[in-house]
Amino acid sequence: MLPFLLLLLLLPSSSTALDFCVGDITAPQTPSGYHCKSPTKVTVNDFIFNGFEKPGNTTNIIKAAVSPAFAAQFPGLNGLGISLARLDLAAGGVVPLHTHPSANEVLLIVQGSILAGFISSSNSVYYKTLYKGDVMVFPQGLLHFQINAGGIPSVAYASFSSSDPGLQITSISLFGSSLPSKIIEVTTFLDHAQVKKLKAVLGGVN
Amino acid sequence: MLPFLLLLLLLPSSSTALDFCVGDITAPQTPSGYHCKSPTKVTVNDFIFNGFEKPGNTTNIIKAAVSPAFAAQFPGLNGLGISLARLDLAAGGVVPLHTHPSANEVLLIVQGSILAGFISSSNSVYYKTLYKGDVMVFPQGLLHFQINAGGIPSVAYASFSSSDPGLQITSISLFGSSLPSKIIEVTTFLDHAQVKKLKAVLGGVN
Amino acid sequence: MLPFLLLLLLLPSSSTALDFCVGDITAPQTPSGYHCKSPTKVTVNDFIFNGFEKPGNTTNIIKAAVSPAFAAQFPGLNGLGISLARLDLAAGGVVPLHTHPSANEVLLIVQGSILAGFISSSNSVYYKTLYKGDVMVFPQGLLHFQINAGGIPSVAYASFSSSDPGLQITSISLFGSSLPSKIIEVTTFLDHAQVKKLKAVLGGVN
Amino acid sequence: MLPFLLLLLLLPSSSTALDFCVGDITAPQTPSGYHCKSPTKVTVNDFIFNGFEKPGNTTNIIKAAVSPAFAAQFPGLNGLGISLARLDLAAGGVVPLHTHPSANEVLLIVQGSILAGFISSSNSVYYKTLYKGDVMVFPQGLLHFQINAGGIPSVAYASFSSSDPGLQITSISLFGSSLPSKIIEVTTFLDHAQVKKLKAVLGGVN
Amino acid sequence: MLPFLLLLLLLPSSSTALDFCVGDITAPQTPSGYHCKSPTKVTVNDFIFNGFEKPGNTTNIIKAAVSPAFAAQFPGLNGLGISLARLDLAAGGVVPLHTHPSANEVLLIVQGSILAGFISSSNSVYYKTLYKGDVMVFPQGLLHFQINAGGIPSVAYASFSSSDPGLQITSISLFGSSLPSKIIEVTTFLDHAQVKKLKAVLGGVN
Amino acid sequence: MLPFLLLLLLLPSSSTALDFCVGDITAPQTPSGYHCKSPTKVTVNDFIFNGFEKPGNTTNIIKAAVSPAFAAQFPGLNGLGISLARLDLAAGGVVPLHTHPSANEVLLIVQGSILAGFISSSNSVYYKTLYKGDVMVFPQGLLHFQINAGGIPSVAYASFSSSDPGLQITSISLFGSSLPSKIIEVTTFLDHAQVKKLKAVLGGVN
Repeated sequence: MLPFLLLLLLLPSSSTALDFCVGDITAPQTPSGYHCKSPTKVTVNDFIFNGFEKPGNTTNIIKAAVSPAFAAQFPGLNGLGISLARLDLAAGGVVPLHTHPSANEVLLIVQGSILAGFISSSNSVYYKTLYKGDVMVFPQGLLHFQINAGGIPSVAYASFSSSDPGLQITSISLFGSSLPSKIIEVTTFLDHAQVKKLKAVLGGVN
Repeated sequence: MLPFLLLLLLLPSSSTALDFCVGDITAPQTPSGYHCKSPTKVTVNDFIFNGFEKPGNTTNIIKAAVSPAFAAQFPGLNGLGISLARLDLAAGGVVPLHTHPSANEVLLIVQGSILAGFISSSNSVYYKTLYKGDVMVFPQGLLHFQINAGGIPSVAYASFSSSDPGLQITSISLFGSSLPSKIIEVTTFLDHAQVKKLKAVLGGVN
Repeated sequence: MLPFLLLLLLLPSSSTALDFCVGDITAPQTPSGYHCKSPTKVTVNDFIFNGFEKPGNTTNIIKAAVSPAFAAQFPGLNGLGISLARLDLAAGGVVPLHTHPSANEVLLIVQGSILAGFISSSNSVYYKTLYKGDVMVFPQGLLHFQINAGGIPSVAYASFSSSDPGLQITSISLFGSSLPSKIIEVTTFLDHAQVKKLKAVLGGVN
Repeated sequence: MLPFLLLLLLLPSSSTALDFCVGDITAPQTPSGYHCKSPTKVTVNDFIFNGFEKPGNTTNIIKAAVSPAFAAQFPGLNGLGISLARLDLAAGGVVPLHTHPSANEVLLIVQGSILAGFISSSNSVYYKTLYKGDVMVFPQGLLHFQINAGGIPSVAYASFSSSDPGLQITSISLFGSSLPSKIIEVTTFLDHAQVKKLKAVLGGVN
Repeated sequence: MLPFLLLLLLLPSSSTALDFCVGDITAPQTPSGYHCKSPTKVTVNDFIFNGFEKPGNTTNIIKAAVSPAFAAQFPGLNGLGISLARLDLAAGGVVPLHTHPSANEVLLIVQGSILAGFISSSNSVYYKTLYKGDVMVFPQGLLHFQINAGGIPSVAYASFSSSDPGLQITSISLFGSSLPSKIIEVTTFLDHAQVKKLKAVLGGVN
Repeated sequence: MLPFLLLLLLLPSSSTALDFCVGDITAPQTPSGYHCKSPTKVTVNDFIFNGFEKPGNTTNIIKAAVSPAFAAQFPGLNGLGISLARLDLAAGGVVPLHTHPSANEVLLIVQGSILAGFISSSNSVYYKTLYKGDVMVFPQGLLHFQINAGGIPSVAYASFSSSDPGLQITSISLFGSSLPSKIIEVTTFLDHAQVKKLKAVLGGVN
């Protein structure tokens, strides 16, 4: 007697359903994300990410580290419209003004305190000091920042409404890229000396 | 004189439009579905599905058959956000409690009568006996069921808001899979004996 | 002892989840559909549609009837991205050339036979005679038609990938509207006499 | 001299942009979410949620608590396609088998250890013990669970790809609702005695 | 001292973000568009289209030209949900009645004057003469047309809410395709002589 | 004889289709846009925008004007995922560095020449001088700019993949808002004197 096999006749093709699409990060991408790894090769480890166990390295000029678990680092998220990042801010640490070009962000403080805020399209400013357990939302594409608000290391986790949210840090885009100083100056109203000074610090050329 | 050719000059590239994307089910998938078969190889038969002509085989323990016309069976649906399935319920037949993880369902009765219902997130229960010509909607991801309500075979057609809606039958997922009995018991409150009994029937291991 | 109430503490707010949004068709619409009827007023009948029990009335010049179960007729579909219609074709019946501006269609034949087809953007033509149990897909926005292919009444059900798919019958739009004859002629290449003749039949003015 | 006002002439209407749509949870919903609170009444506190500061109350039969920050609790998330929940599991605590009908979930362990897993449409089972800093993804609509895996309280945060993900706990839907026992038995293969026993515990009627 | 390199440690993988997906038009398509060209091979020229510099060739029977900048012609638009087309109408020029199966259109007049209009699903007709600087919107999938309204050449630019909007010109689909005359006649109410006459002009067969 | 009326029986409810949703900009918004104006009150003028006939006023410090035709100015676009803006750049005119938080942009030059460019998430810079008839695409959320590249006034039209794309000008958000100088300095690396100088020019407080 084989009741199990009989029951299977009910659904001969259910195994083809695309419940998930673990990304094959070695193949070309599509507008909807990476190609799917063959379901037969998927294991539980494809759905698990281990990169948040240790603090990020904050021995840098901003005393901060952002450790992404986006589709490129965590292919199990591919196509699912969600991703995470761990944020470490040493004492004095800052995540400079930045945007995520294609995702809303929700930030959860798990240690310490962080002064966080954003600026809207109509130039309204929303900021506040957040403590452990507080959550703040930063709508898509708007300038925002995080600053350690205490004397001790802070840790927070950001969730994004995209598996590939992007991250554009304004000052690095301006002063750490090849955008010519003359263009920066005329499109930001910054002084020539200021631009040159920051290009020297952040590695910009032209 | 070639007016037709002249007119064609109007739209030199219209033939590239992606009106449809007949799935190439031999290639890797993407989060948006299968790759498109070359338009030059597409024929009218790619847009037609013939698998609903005969009743599904209901000689199984649930006296029911679900015959899918999802993208895997009907590649012409690929990327179009719609699919169908034929449901056959012999006398006494039942489609056990199940969900479609990524699609809303609309069920149309074409023969016989079916007792159908679903349970909402707030645990409200909605069920009724449906007769030939009746239609019922089952919102995405919610538990629902269909039971033959007469003494004769019933036939219904389900339409889904996805070309790959998935199908998860609760009791098969629990008792026909490798999920350990101990985990089942603690996460469902079911008794050990009950779990073991159903695993024996449905083919579950561990 | 109140274990049930204790358990409910687990999820104090689950009852707010928007599992469905039964449309309030008396209120203004939004781009995403009708406002939701209060969940407390929703009953099982909101999820059931009964309009397909009888054949549509085919005693008209096209010997055909299309009976929609779109969000306006079946508010339980509101916002769910799916809808149905029943198609009745008497002997000699025709659904004239038409499009659904915002939905893909899947057509299932349940009685008789129907010659159905569509024309792509690149002017390729796909048509075939469909029999009981056959299914054909018509991609979004493309011109298509259905013609009774036998001497007996045919019945089919169309499923759409929108709860409000729209329906634009080309000849009624042209000859049953107020579009001036002169504009019709110059934008279709049809003769003046032909336009006037059809306007008289289909009720067009100007 | 008023350079600021002159500059404002550049963008007379930028203040109308819908950067965000803080939900007015007192008005009827739409398929895309709540109506937007007037931007002039929005303050920074609309973008902040404070409900995660204290552990949820785990003195219940499952020794677990799920504290949601969905659009109903955190209206600043309205329409943004993302939300959070805090999960507390006392020693022996369990989040019973459940689904989120319209969202993918990513779970981050911040304290203790949790045995978590899901079952796919094709009845493959994926589960593993997660430790502090581990992340696991549960694709939309699939059955999954979380069990405290150590002797100490565990804490985790779930992120969802919807601002209103829903939550359907299988055993509460079955045994804590008004679904008749007879229907439960025939659609799940469970024994009558088992169903009656759990209805008594979980508060189900009929 | 290497502050730039130190700062880069902040974001080891930001370079993988999918800011854009320049289409590789030589590879198979997916439902979401073309595969992405490798970011390392992308140059500024991928984001620029030069095909609108000269008027389209209007020496044809409709005295009109539509020059598309869709994803196939301008791969930088791939996956971005937007595209353009240039429209040239010589004196007496006409863009015949047509639809875009999967896009809304916004038309901007930059030279001359154009009589433009569309017909809704409910057969309401909306048309008006547009002058330089006027903009008109044509909702997705609805029949619309443009006619030069002055004695001089007119130029307009259409923007579409898809990178691959498609274009189906009703009379070419009917009379320039292989759709049999008999089918055309029965599905449009047109006379046999009219159909044959236009097939001769527009190149239709069967 | 009333053939027209008979034919109408075919489609008793087609007039309810939501072909379009002209925005009622006096009512509260939803995440999907404005409520729809009653279809019976819609006229052709709802689909036409006349605000681009005259150049924008460029007598301001940036010698530039952006004239939007977003849903707030052109309610016919509501919910359609597309909008336009006219850009005027006098000699020496500049549109400062900015982003559109929720839209891709395509820019078409219709007069003069413009140096335009954007910076990607990975800090790659793409810029070029565009001439009449050239088109450039700026992917969603990325920093970009436009600078008049000739000695004469330039005119361009931007198309957006949203009916409400938003516009955030970096330097106005920083120096024309209430964001405290101290926060600006620490999140941008700019000098205190530079920040104070620009706040004086652009009207910022705190």
